Amino acid sequence: MEEERLVTQITPKSEDFSRWYLDLIRRTELADYAPMKGMMVIRPYGYAIWENIQRLLDERIKATGHVNAYFPLFIPESFLRKEMEHLEGFAPEVAWVTHGGADELEERLAVRPTSEAIIGFMYSKWIKSWRDLPVLINQWANVVRWEKVTRPFLRTTEFLWQEGHTAHESYDEAQAETLRILDMYREFVETELAIPVIFGRKSDREKFAGALATYAIEALMSDGKALQMGTSHNLGQHFAQVFNIRFEDQGQNLQYIWQTSWGVSTRLIGALVMAHGDDSGLVFPPRVAPLQVVIIPISIGDWKENVLPRAVELKNRLEKAGIRAFLDDRSEYTPGWKFSEWEMRGVPLRLEIGPRDIKNNQAVAVRRDHLEKSIISLDGLEEKVKEILASIQSSLFNRALTFQTGNTRQVSSYEEFKAVIEDKRGFIQAYWCGSEECEAKIKEETMATIRVIPLNNEKNQKGECIFCQKEARIMAVFARSY
Amino acid sequence: MEEERLVTQITPKSEDFSRWYLDLIRRTELADYAPMKGMMVIRPYGYAIWENIQRLLDERIKATGHVNAYFPLFIPESFLRKEMEHLEGFAPEVAWVTHGGADELEERLAVRPTSEAIIGFMYSKWIKSWRDLPVLINQWANVVRWEKVTRPFLRTTEFLWQEGHTAHESYDEAQAETLRILDMYREFVETELAIPVIFGRKSDREKFAGALATYAIEALMSDGKALQMGTSHNLGQHFAQVFNIRFEDQGQNLQYIWQTSWGVSTRLIGALVMAHGDDSGLVFPPRVAPLQVVIIPISIGDWKENVLPRAVELKNRLEKAGIRAFLDDRSEYTPGWKFSEWEMRGVPLRLEIGPRDIKNNQAVAVRRDHLEKSIISLDGLEEKVKEILASIQSSLFNRALTFQTGNTRQVSSYEEFKAVIEDKRGFIQAYWCGSEECEAKIKEETMATIRVIPLNNEKNQKGECIFCQKEARIMAVFARSY
Repeated sequence: MEEERLVTQITPKSEDFSRWYLDLIRRTELADYAPMKGMMVIRPYGYAIWENIQRLLDERIKATGHVNAYFPLFIPESFLRKEMEHLEGFAPEVAWVTHGGADELEERLAVRPTSEAIIGFMYSKWIKSWRDLPVLINQWANVVRWEKVTRPFLRTTEFLWQEGHTAHESYDEAQAETLRILDMYREFVETELAIPVIFGRKSDREKFAGALATYAIEALMSDGKALQMGTSHNLGQHFAQVFNIRFEDQGQNLQYIWQTSWGVSTRLIGALVMAHGDDSGLVFPPRVAPLQVVIIPISIGDWKENVLPRAVELKNRLEKAGIRAFLDDRSEYTPGWKFSEWEMRGVPLRLEIGPRDIKNNQAVAVRRDHLEKSIISLDGLEEKVKEILASIQSSLFNRALTFQTGNTRQVSSYEEFKAVIEDKRGFIQAYWCGSEECEAKIKEETMATIRVIPLNNEKNQKGECIFCQKEARIMAVFARSY
Repeated sequence: MEEERLVTQITPKSEDFSRWYLDLIRRTELADYAPMKGMMVIRPYGYAIWENIQRLLDERIKATGHVNAYFPLFIPESFLRKEMEHLEGFAPEVAWVTHGGADELEERLAVRPTSEAIIGFMYSKWIKSWRDLPVLINQWANVVRWEKVTRPFLRTTEFLWQEGHTAHESYDEAQAETLRILDMYREFVETELAIPVIFGRKSDREKFAGALATYAIEALMSDGKALQMGTSHNLGQHFAQVFNIRFEDQGQNLQYIWQTSWGVSTRLIGALVMAHGDDSGLVFPPRVAPLQVVIIPISIGDWKENVLPRAVELKNRLEKAGIRAFLDDRSEYTPGWKFSEWEMRGVPLRLEIGPRDIKNNQAVAVRRDHLEKSIISLDGLEEKVKEILASIQSSLFNRALTFQTGNTRQVSSYEEFKAVIEDKRGFIQAYWCGSEECEAKIKEETMATIRVIPLNNEKNQKGECIFCQKEARIMAVFARSY
């Protein structure tokens, strides 16, 4: 059977992680390559994850007082030019629209790489008084960055994201918002994606073009490389000065506003693949899995008469209980083929039901996290399934946390640093003097970058810079990253 | 007060409908002009409507077996060129990307005006066998059309929409899908937007570039002009031939697939404004209104101690019951100002609560549809509010239906046709011989176009063409339109 051959075509993860990732994404129909360099199509099975992410994150964005809006896709070049630091950060990556229909445009339009410039301009029209503040707006949108090296979900020319853009009366309020969102992201990723993260400030070298400070959550993928999962920027008054966004404060003085911006993207889908997947394929945490349960009828004898109707009934019961269930009733595939197919597609729980199971009022349950079988009674099935799904969710988180903890190492010499990066990867905690030069050299020699500087650690510690051995007060977390 | 002046700045609808529309949209913060010609920002109050539309329509799209996916924003020029009929239809409206970063692209990329070409290409890779059919995919996305004359929501350079793209084994299946979606749109718009529609086939002149047949739902705005609310196309095998999308049928023969595509857009928000709005401002049907109930505490005496806590309690009770409620507790505005502000913003139900109301365990309720006051008890408030909201929803639909019925006229002479179009507008039912020439002349002389040819009417009727007086079997519906 052609399909059976295809299942075995996935390169084992242990053999070639990168190949495994690409094989898996295409074979499980999460995404496919588009015919334009660096662009992809998010197929229904992958997009269903994005819909779950959107729903679960949007709830949190709204619960913290934000509202959604939509700003234009195009940004005039002059707007980006107003803010040279920002333009320089993004210019190499901008796709430019030069013609509308047959006519050449008077001014080129950037396809938004991010929306600070256009939103800054609009805020300058909308914000007049302290009564208008805070402005807490988020946008779900597509953005384009002309990347040289691309990889589905992780780095693509176009991607989907949410970008929050807020305006405040004071630095303190903006800083509180920046950290509130960082914590919202951390809680969201750990709870829903079952991926533990570390968090902290980025070094100046790694911060967002135009920001006062960038904060990020970072996770360890199962090959030991780090992935930036989300960022939250305190923009200070930088864009406010560029776009002249001023408000009359309560003392009737004109002041520049203080801003933040923050985002997560479809990259999170790539993180799910790389953090939880194994040699058998995808492993999705139940809370964001496209399907949570797959029911496979054992197709022997007159199964269509005896087994199928009970399988349909089970599926309906699960769906009624709010569980995303799928019944694979195709007769052109064997049960065995379906088992490995749905394992590969990462469905958290498989229920097998055959004639004997029906007689015994039971189903065979196989969890995707450890592939162990158990027998469960059809009485109270819904509650039992919910318990198993919750158990899978926490077992995946704990597994990933154990991996992260086991792959976070504090080193005290540069030799050790290089050895760990080369042999084991993972997060490396090391003292850093704070100089961009040391940071750049370390990157050049080891391909490791500072992922985050954990919050507030600067006050309490003192040691020697891992590179120059000068006094260092910062314990930074380094890693090779995607 | 500056704000009170602004309320009166809306041009009365009866005086200048077009001005009223533009004033209202900006003053109520549904949308604002972006600094690029023809582009707009959808502000949170307007975007909340889009979110409600998305949620309510997406439920229906999924209930009919469709799944969502995401295809690239850019389409290579050669893809559009493959399909000349399609390209010619869209070429004058395409925004072209010519540069990525500093480099000129080898091939220009169109910012998608619609996605048939890129989706057709991907389907040619995905569809191999009858087992792969039907493919029932929908996409929520932004699209760009370089329009010469624009108006917020109705016609903008960029807009948001959903586009369904399905693939089938036979003409009959594709045709059934086309009409199923048309009916889904009709039911959605009538139920959720409270706007009655007519529906039918478009003339060849008005159909989608590349389609076999286009079907549409059309509604009458309160100025008597028609608005196309949604379209559903039977694409036949046209794109299948262009992109070579073939499948092996059950008899093992290679066949071209049959396709449909269909969409509704943010234009529906403009329809809500124009179909229901009045001289006092917006009037939103409760099911899609951003806010369904606004609670206004009567701010006299020690209202913050006596009235406000009860108002907060009411708001929480309503929200708990699933009602979108807002408490306007601002102390810098008077109750009277708030009344007209929220009337203008179209909130379906206003609850006023003052010290006397609290004593009597009641609130004053004012419905936005007819602005009449009533007293309602705070006992069982949630149920009572739900009843009133349902009543407003159906009263708005009935009002619009009465308007539509009263403004649909059958005419039997061209003189009468011209007089009705000039003096009364509305829908005009008239016989048409089917020739494009008559259709073009009528448009040229009256600015009226064929909105739809009602389904199946061709078989049962016979008369004289309103223009050329030759025999006609088609009773078409004409109108001036947006």
